[in-house]
Amino acid sequence: MSAPTVDFFYEFASTYSYPAAMRIGDVAAAAGVTVRWRPFLLGPIFAEAGWTTSPFNLIPAKGRNMWRDLERITEAMGLPFRKPDPFPQNSLLAARIATALPDDGKRSAFSREVYRLEFGEGLSIMDPEVLGQALTSAGIEPATAIVAAGSEDVKKALRATTEEAKAACLFGAPSIITTDGELFWGNDRLEQAMEWAARVARP
Amino acid sequence: MSAPTVDFFYEFASTYSYPAAMRIGDVAAAAGVTVRWRPFLLGPIFAEAGWTTSPFNLIPAKGRNMWRDLERITEAMGLPFRKPDPFPQNSLLAARIATALPDDGKRSAFSREVYRLEFGEGLSIMDPEVLGQALTSAGIEPATAIVAAGSEDVKKALRATTEEAKAACLFGAPSIITTDGELFWGNDRLEQAMEWAARVARP
Repeated sequence: MSAPTVDFFYEFASTYSYPAAMRIGDVAAAAGVTVRWRPFLLGPIFAEAGWTTSPFNLIPAKGRNMWRDLERITEAMGLPFRKPDPFPQNSLLAARIATALPDDGKRSAFSREVYRLEFGEGLSIMDPEVLGQALTSAGIEPATAIVAAGSEDVKKALRATTEEAKAACLFGAPSIITTDGELFWGNDRLEQAMEWAARVARP
Repeated sequence: MSAPTVDFFYEFASTYSYPAAMRIGDVAAAAGVTVRWRPFLLGPIFAEAGWTTSPFNLIPAKGRNMWRDLERITEAMGLPFRKPDPFPQNSLLAARIATALPDDGKRSAFSREVYRLEFGEGLSIMDPEVLGQALTSAGIEPATAIVAAGSEDVKKALRATTEEAKAACLFGAPSIITTDGELFWGNDRLEQAMEWAARVARP
């Protein structure tokens, strides 16, 4: 039978998607699981809950803890950390570029670079130049990818992924869904998600 | 120097406080850390955020995930699990009884029994008989403890703990605070909290 597979739903504005994107490759490989990289937008889902910004901004004490927690997590992982300003960043263009890229290693490489620039260096991912830098670092020709990201097909595909996330009752990022529909939310659940996926796939 | 100590802030209505209360003793012992059991009320803190019920009720998709996540966690720990109805339970009487008990093993034993009855058997902790059962199982004479819980001193002490939690910017439970003021939120952070406490205490 085919290798176990999970859908990794991530949002470029999401803080905990940063460590998750950086380590999911290793966690999945250790469990023999294949990861499908699924960039989506949380904005439309948050808007339905009546939120106009990140819940981390709406509840300041929760936000303060999240930034400190992320600082501890990235330090333990040996990753750079710098809070972007403003937060959350508008992630639309980054999500479109990621959607336009094939999920053959290019999409994940670009996505990791975006997170590194955004939460490692505090740069603005609303800036096309920063996204161009992420593409170049990932070994992708920037101009072609940015033009492709503007196509109607890519916009539709990103909307479809966001609709799929909503239909699957996603309420935050990162989230992992296994082929049998089990949902695991958060950077803290990567290991459990992979174990689940590997167990389900066993004949 | 004295052994490292942490404050374990827990709320009897809080779902993730259940697995945390059940395992914090072992996690702390392994790290050589002493735990101060600090029952408090989240209600007044949630009310200031404008919430009249649990955020897990306010955001249904988040609530669904939480119950499923808790089911997976308790199953992995070999703990019984049954959702109480209504949720959240009114935790005032349980918190007063816990506050009235000395933190010498009696408070923690009673607290674990409350969680086992509430989230393991789905019983109502608003029912004094259920709390009496928790006291008896913990080896504590119920009538004396329940009378003591109604004293003005105990009410004041519980209010003071809740005020202390608010001043420390707690926004959820369980939460652990180390002696140097580091905040760790959630059942997922017990290990990190103990490691931090042990490291800080090292001469």
